[in-house]
Amino acid sequence: MKQQSRARIEQALEAALARGEVRGAPPRLAAAIRHAVWPGGARIRPHLCLAVAAACGDGDAALADAGAAAIELLHCASLVHDDLPCFDDAALRRGRAAVHVAYGERCAVLAGDALIVMAFETLAHGAARHPLRLPSMLAVLAQRVGMPYGIVAGQAWECEDYAALPDYHRAKTGSLFAAATELGAIAAGGDPNVWRGFGERLGEAYQVADDIRDAACETEVLGKPAQKDRTLGRPSAVHEFGLAGALAHFEQLVDHAGRSVPDGPGAKQLRALLQAEAERLLPPTVRAQAVA
Amino acid sequence: MKQQSRARIEQALEAALARGEVRGAPPRLAAAIRHAVWPGGARIRPHLCLAVAAACGDGDAALADAGAAAIELLHCASLVHDDLPCFDDAALRRGRAAVHVAYGERCAVLAGDALIVMAFETLAHGAARHPLRLPSMLAVLAQRVGMPYGIVAGQAWECEDYAALPDYHRAKTGSLFAAATELGAIAAGGDPNVWRGFGERLGEAYQVADDIRDAACETEVLGKPAQKDRTLGRPSAVHEFGLAGALAHFEQLVDHAGRSVPDGPGAKQLRALLQAEAERLLPPTVRAQAVA
Repeated sequence: MKQQSRARIEQALEAALARGEVRGAPPRLAAAIRHAVWPGGARIRPHLCLAVAAACGDGDAALADAGAAAIELLHCASLVHDDLPCFDDAALRRGRAAVHVAYGERCAVLAGDALIVMAFETLAHGAARHPLRLPSMLAVLAQRVGMPYGIVAGQAWECEDYAALPDYHRAKTGSLFAAATELGAIAAGGDPNVWRGFGERLGEAYQVADDIRDAACETEVLGKPAQKDRTLGRPSAVHEFGLAGALAHFEQLVDHAGRSVPDGPGAKQLRALLQAEAERLLPPTVRAQAVA
Repeated sequence: MKQQSRARIEQALEAALARGEVRGAPPRLAAAIRHAVWPGGARIRPHLCLAVAAACGDGDAALADAGAAAIELLHCASLVHDDLPCFDDAALRRGRAAVHVAYGERCAVLAGDALIVMAFETLAHGAARHPLRLPSMLAVLAQRVGMPYGIVAGQAWECEDYAALPDYHRAKTGSLFAAATELGAIAAGGDPNVWRGFGERLGEAYQVADDIRDAACETEVLGKPAQKDRTLGRPSAVHEFGLAGALAHFEQLVDHAGRSVPDGPGAKQLRALLQAEAERLLPPTVRAQAVA
C-alpha cells in the first residue's frame, strides 16, 4: 500500500510541476523548482494525507492526491527558504547542493515563492469533482502554512528574542502534519477535526526526533550539516530535556499519536504506519547513541 | 466612486492582516507584514479589480473585495522580495525603509511568504456566498503569479542570460493587471476572457511608464532609487526605444487598453479611470522631461 501511495504522490507532484514547464517559462527557475522537489525525502506528510483519506474511504482520489502534493510542495518551499544564507546558510540538503548553492540565491527565493503558489494551484485543479470541498481545504492549508500559527510563523520565531519550545515546534513542524491529516479527511468527505490531534502529535514527535538526530548523528548520516541547532543557538528538545529526556518525550508523543487515531476500518493500518515511521525516524543505532 | 473603492480595499486588507495578528503570533513578522502593506501606493490593481466587478454588476461585493485584496497582497509580497539584497538591494520603498532594512532579511523573506499565503486564504474566506467561483479565481490568480508566466516567472527572467522585453514585462507586471480584471469579472459572475486584454495592456503600459520614470526622474520624486534599470543592466523600454520612443509606446498601449474595454454600462467609467491613471503615471512634467 505504501508503494502505491508513493506512486500516486510522485505522479501528483510531476503533474503540478509539468504545468509550469512549458515553452516560455524561465528555464533556470524551472530547474531550481525541480531540484527542490526531486529526489524527495520520505514524503511522510503526503503519505499521511493519503493514509487518512484511505481511512475515510478515499471517495475522491484526485482531490486526496492534490492535497498530498500541495502539502509536499509547501514542505519543499519551506526547506528551500530555510536553507538560504540569511537563515541556516545550509549548503547541503538531502545529500546534495541546496537550491541556493546550485542555482543562486535569487532563484532559490523565487523557487520557494513559485512552490507556494503551485501548492494552492494544485488544490484548485484537484477539486473538479468536489469544488465545495475546496474552500475548507484552502483555508486549512493557509492556516497551517501562514500566520498566525503556520510554518512561516514557526520559522519567524527564530527571529524573535524568545520562543517557547512547544509553540515553536507546533508551528514549525506540527502544523504541516496536522494539515496532512485534515486535508486527507476533507478530501474524502470526512471530518478534519477528529484527525487533527493525530497529525499534531506525529508532527511534534517528528521535530523532537529531528532534534535528537541533529545532536546525536554525523553529517554523513543526515545528508545535511549536523549540530545545527547548537551552532545556531536554536530552541531544541535536546537542549531542554537532554538526549535521554528528549527520547522519552519522543516515545510519549508517538504513543499519544497512536491513541489519537479514531477507531474505524483504517485505524490498524494507520497505527502500523506510525510505528514504522517511528522506527525510521529514530533507528535503534541512533537510540543507542542517544542513551549512551 | 474611487474614494468608495479605496475604503473597500483598505478594509479588506485590514481584515486579511487582522486574521493573523492574534495572541501567539510572532510579533516581528506581524509588524513586517503590516509595514509591507501600509502605507500603500496607488492600489491601482485592486481599484481595477473593483472597477471591472462594478462593470459586471458587482453581484458579490465580498468576493470582489477578496479578489482585490488578494491581488494587492501578492503585489506587496513581490515588492518585499524584489527589494531583498540578492535582487535590487533597495533600501527605500514608498519613501521609507524597505522591509528588509526595517526588520532584517529573514523577516522580509518570511513576510513575502506569509503575504502569498494570505492572498489565497483571503480568496477562500471571500467565497462564502459563491464557493463555485473559487476554483477559477484560484486557478487564474495562481497562473498570474507563479509559473510559467506569472510575476514570479517574470522576476526569474532577471536571472536568465537573455529575456525578450515583451515576455519580461508581460510576466512581471502585465500578469497581475490581467489577474485584477479577470478576478473582478469572475467575482461578479462575468466572463474573465473578455476582460483580460484590457488588464494586460494597462499592465504593460504601467511597466513602460515605470521605465520612463526610472530613467527621467530623481530619487526624491520616485520614493525609491532612480536609474535602477540602468544600474542593474535590466531590460527596459527606454533602453530599447529611447525616451521619446518609450513615451510613444506608452500612449499606444493606453489607447489599445481603452479600446479593449468591452462595451456596456461601465465602459465609460472605466475609460475615464484609464485616462486618469495614465495622467497619474506620467504627469505632464515627466512627459516634458522625457521629450526634452
